[in-house]
Amino acid sequence: MSLRVGVIGTGMIGQDHIRRLTKVLQGVEVVAVNDIDENRATAIAPEGAKVFTSVKELIHSETVDAVVICSWGAAHEEQLLECIAAGKPVFCEKPMVISEESALKVLAAEVAYGKRLVQVGFMRRFDADYRRLKAVIDGGTLGTPLMYHSTHRNPSVPEGLYTSDMPLNDTLVHDADISRWLLSDEIDAVEVRVPRRSTRGGELRDPTIVLLHMASGAIVDVEISVNIAYGYDIRGEVSCELGVAALPNRPATVISDQHGIRQAIPEDWRERFIEAYDQEFREWIAAASAGTATGPSAWDGYAATLTADAALRAVTSGQREPIKRISKPDLYN
Amino acid sequence: MSLRVGVIGTGMIGQDHIRRLTKVLQGVEVVAVNDIDENRATAIAPEGAKVFTSVKELIHSETVDAVVICSWGAAHEEQLLECIAAGKPVFCEKPMVISEESALKVLAAEVAYGKRLVQVGFMRRFDADYRRLKAVIDGGTLGTPLMYHSTHRNPSVPEGLYTSDMPLNDTLVHDADISRWLLSDEIDAVEVRVPRRSTRGGELRDPTIVLLHMASGAIVDVEISVNIAYGYDIRGEVSCELGVAALPNRPATVISDQHGIRQAIPEDWRERFIEAYDQEFREWIAAASAGTATGPSAWDGYAATLTADAALRAVTSGQREPIKRISKPDLYN
Amino acid sequence: MSLRVGVIGTGMIGQDHIRRLTKVLQGVEVVAVNDIDENRATAIAPEGAKVFTSVKELIHSETVDAVVICSWGAAHEEQLLECIAAGKPVFCEKPMVISEESALKVLAAEVAYGKRLVQVGFMRRFDADYRRLKAVIDGGTLGTPLMYHSTHRNPSVPEGLYTSDMPLNDTLVHDADISRWLLSDEIDAVEVRVPRRSTRGGELRDPTIVLLHMASGAIVDVEISVNIAYGYDIRGEVSCELGVAALPNRPATVISDQHGIRQAIPEDWRERFIEAYDQEFREWIAAASAGTATGPSAWDGYAATLTADAALRAVTSGQREPIKRISKPDLYN
Amino acid sequence: MSLRVGVIGTGMIGQDHIRRLTKVLQGVEVVAVNDIDENRATAIAPEGAKVFTSVKELIHSETVDAVVICSWGAAHEEQLLECIAAGKPVFCEKPMVISEESALKVLAAEVAYGKRLVQVGFMRRFDADYRRLKAVIDGGTLGTPLMYHSTHRNPSVPEGLYTSDMPLNDTLVHDADISRWLLSDEIDAVEVRVPRRSTRGGELRDPTIVLLHMASGAIVDVEISVNIAYGYDIRGEVSCELGVAALPNRPATVISDQHGIRQAIPEDWRERFIEAYDQEFREWIAAASAGTATGPSAWDGYAATLTADAALRAVTSGQREPIKRISKPDLYN
Repeated sequence: MSLRVGVIGTGMIGQDHIRRLTKVLQGVEVVAVNDIDENRATAIAPEGAKVFTSVKELIHSETVDAVVICSWGAAHEEQLLECIAAGKPVFCEKPMVISEESALKVLAAEVAYGKRLVQVGFMRRFDADYRRLKAVIDGGTLGTPLMYHSTHRNPSVPEGLYTSDMPLNDTLVHDADISRWLLSDEIDAVEVRVPRRSTRGGELRDPTIVLLHMASGAIVDVEISVNIAYGYDIRGEVSCELGVAALPNRPATVISDQHGIRQAIPEDWRERFIEAYDQEFREWIAAASAGTATGPSAWDGYAATLTADAALRAVTSGQREPIKRISKPDLYN
Repeated sequence: MSLRVGVIGTGMIGQDHIRRLTKVLQGVEVVAVNDIDENRATAIAPEGAKVFTSVKELIHSETVDAVVICSWGAAHEEQLLECIAAGKPVFCEKPMVISEESALKVLAAEVAYGKRLVQVGFMRRFDADYRRLKAVIDGGTLGTPLMYHSTHRNPSVPEGLYTSDMPLNDTLVHDADISRWLLSDEIDAVEVRVPRRSTRGGELRDPTIVLLHMASGAIVDVEISVNIAYGYDIRGEVSCELGVAALPNRPATVISDQHGIRQAIPEDWRERFIEAYDQEFREWIAAASAGTATGPSAWDGYAATLTADAALRAVTSGQREPIKRISKPDLYN
Repeated sequence: MSLRVGVIGTGMIGQDHIRRLTKVLQGVEVVAVNDIDENRATAIAPEGAKVFTSVKELIHSETVDAVVICSWGAAHEEQLLECIAAGKPVFCEKPMVISEESALKVLAAEVAYGKRLVQVGFMRRFDADYRRLKAVIDGGTLGTPLMYHSTHRNPSVPEGLYTSDMPLNDTLVHDADISRWLLSDEIDAVEVRVPRRSTRGGELRDPTIVLLHMASGAIVDVEISVNIAYGYDIRGEVSCELGVAALPNRPATVISDQHGIRQAIPEDWRERFIEAYDQEFREWIAAASAGTATGPSAWDGYAATLTADAALRAVTSGQREPIKRISKPDLYN
Repeated sequence: MSLRVGVIGTGMIGQDHIRRLTKVLQGVEVVAVNDIDENRATAIAPEGAKVFTSVKELIHSETVDAVVICSWGAAHEEQLLECIAAGKPVFCEKPMVISEESALKVLAAEVAYGKRLVQVGFMRRFDADYRRLKAVIDGGTLGTPLMYHSTHRNPSVPEGLYTSDMPLNDTLVHDADISRWLLSDEIDAVEVRVPRRSTRGGELRDPTIVLLHMASGAIVDVEISVNIAYGYDIRGEVSCELGVAALPNRPATVISDQHGIRQAIPEDWRERFIEAYDQEFREWIAAASAGTATGPSAWDGYAATLTADAALRAVTSGQREPIKRISKPDLYN
């Protein structure tokens, strides 16, 4: 009784998800693929999977129970709406969409449908370290969380391809989503502060400091450094009324040698989050098999879009940019 | 093309393995079960699996591609020999067998068969932390390993059920196997030293210190404390010519509160090694699907039996007890 | 050839300094004391020390080589000017003074004198952990420092006595001074953000987040939590172009018990900084014996005052409050 | 009222102690020096100190209140007996003496004197980390200590000068003394095990494993690696009935760079124990000023000698070598 999945987008991310859907995870079968580049879709398609030249046909095909969207961000809106129209559970890679308008359309469609169908690819929520951190906060032994210090360090970004907006509308969204989730909160306003520039990125505006003002009054500060060379280093520390809870070091061998007593740091995001990606799909498969979706919702995708937009306004204005949200539909409570 | 598996023994361990084979892992299907207690076998059997009253019938059934042995240790020898006779890959929980004589029979049978069929359940070899540790040692940057300090701490053992021999013939075998594997070495002799007793175990001889004298000259010291209350704490540190490599803390949230800055320690062996159990089966499924076996072999099961026997002699004699091994058959190189 | 020291102010801080000057440190002798409360001065005065009823007389006494000021902040200006007039080296506890105007007078007097005489009590600069951290930054292997994350957590503050201004004009000054020193930089502007309040302090505005905008463009963020219960926890992490350097845990025994694997956190500032206090005086004694001063200067005291004032403006205005400094006199380069 | 000290032996250790007695510590004055090499004594002698050509004259001089012995080990016995005869408190560097016979003479003399005069230079007892560790054990929260794992790693030893006996009769004594002190116990027997040799020391027998069988039944295992290159790394972990207590990492800056997240390890014993040396003298000065001695006693020096002798017998015999002690005189209780 495998979940029969159609994958839209067979680029790097799509290939990685196809790999985990075919070789790693249970109860699932990739039966259909589509890509703007038909040759690539054909090359990537697992054995037995049909290559669809039409996204619409793939989505509506009787052979497809659920859909995975790994296409170009601008294409997500249309594809999501089509999935909802077809009543099919859909996993959508970030960004869910690339404008507030698109997000509102997706929300409206899903609310009209009356059941959750969309899970957005904010994989950190499925990371064991983050889950343990949330459990500690939710346990309440440390009191109310008041501040969250998030650190997002990347060894390097491809020059030219990675532009100065991307720390705010691409990289930041993970820290924003995880802040909302860890603190069970919403982001009411964004401030951006730009320190002296790292010389490693040429003209790239890097690093960046972002302040997320939460609805509860808690404040999140995010350090985003995208060219810091030494590794892919994700840190988080919640400062509560009675104590502090933080992510641990990654479990590397403790070596004592001429460099001291040390542990390796992940080199890239794949190394750091591979299990989280597996787990977000593991849970998606279970929900989709029941005809619905759990995990990060279209509301979370909407919140991410609003935050990215506010951050882009804030870095220009230097001001505290408020976020205006619609009322949260019951479907997402 | 799932591997069709028959499971012998549906007690606690057997149930846990059936769970991972049906709910966690890919490419496998439990089609047959057997247990001395037929009612329990029937209750545990997954949907669609047939309950075999005869172990022999299960093993030789055409519907069974490979076998998992989780029965009482004394029954392993016969069941392993039957699997080899049937030419079927078999995963056998520790202890592979319970006597040197039995081990030699299994080795002879498998060698005669001419291909590896047996994988023994020494799951630590599949633990990510241990694998990273071995990679560091094998990488050679720290020079030759000279000493290995292994620590095996258990919060408690069931009074009465766990006897004074068990630290040496049950608990020790994991440290012995991992020492041989980490150091790519054999155990030539065993010494046992008994410190003052922990009052937490009544008459139980606990803790114990074991010295494993490796063929290379390296020495392994093992602390075995089975009633240490605070947690299930497995440690390992390899002291080489140029440096040291050790297992890290488990990745728990770093909490700062009235107890200090701290990380939780696993409560039991399941919590600590659940991924290793999944991984050992993941790799067994792959090998068995190809009609063979990889991972810990019958030779490793034989070595474990010899080590346990030598340890039991050593704790009584107070002497250094040598281990006499047969020549290692080519099949295991 | 002991340095003969006169101490002004024999309250808690003064007593502690007298203790270290008489029992811990070398080459120094407390020969004179003064306090507004003459009885207390008499009770505290070490054997052989003379109690002066007049601060002026103490400062100008031929028996006094150097002066230690531990009096009420408002009294510091006059006492410092008197020491400079007398040409005597003087250690002055923080705050050096309590207004910008007073700071400018002290600077002018010392510059006119032509030699440094004033050392201000910013003891963190003498802490071994902070010194090692600065050495790493100054070593340049991590590239230019771009951000500094400072954390100042206090278990509790005396209700009523500790008011909502004090995180900014009392607690913050240490983080401000250490930022200037670690980054070899000046503070150009201050922003203050107020998260949701901790319920542990009643009406006290706590915690607070302060952003220090450095002249170089580096940004320092400071978390100040004064009632966080669990301990006195001082943290600092410098994020540079190529890596990160941070203060370590304090060297407590690593205990593994029912609370996990843990290290104790200091209970208060004395426990945390006692060696730093000893060291700042050790070096003051050496400099004062040579008729001058080293370490934190009147310029640093001035900068601290400006920062505190800017922080108080910022918490009210919600704006980025610039700091206007006079040109730095050569004396302080 | 300074303690007037005479120092016998102005080699490297003697010079270091003279440095701390003149520049670091309070309440003490070096008034006399002696060395076999009179020129060296003259060169090293602090200002105002008299160079004595005769050890006996120095010891008995009215200008000398207390004596520090840093001479060649073989000379200690005579010098200690002379100090006791003169009724003068004496700090004696390790080894207290170099034979059991000598130790018995010193004990007899001090016992006859009726008051403690001798403090032996086992500085680890004054190290803050070890003191915290002992406090945890003595506090009893972890139950009775059953095993102690001691690690003594040295980056290198001077080839030729450092011989194969020295791990056992020189290096080991610190671990032996600290074991007796931490566990409040005596060593009843010694076993030595020799792993495969490190290639870094040529013919040097290194590393070594020593088992100390304590009177209580607790067992101490000591890893001694004298050429391990990476640093001077001293570790200790006490395994008790209910938990474990261990020495922490040394407080180095936590650096995150291309080598991982790391802390430096001390390069040599001076770096590691400099504060302990200061503290052992600080306390010696206080005791000697009261005409007596505290800290490690002649009994502890005797125990160290017995342990070293037993270890040398054990490495040759391969047997468990018992230690025969005289009854402990009341003076040392």
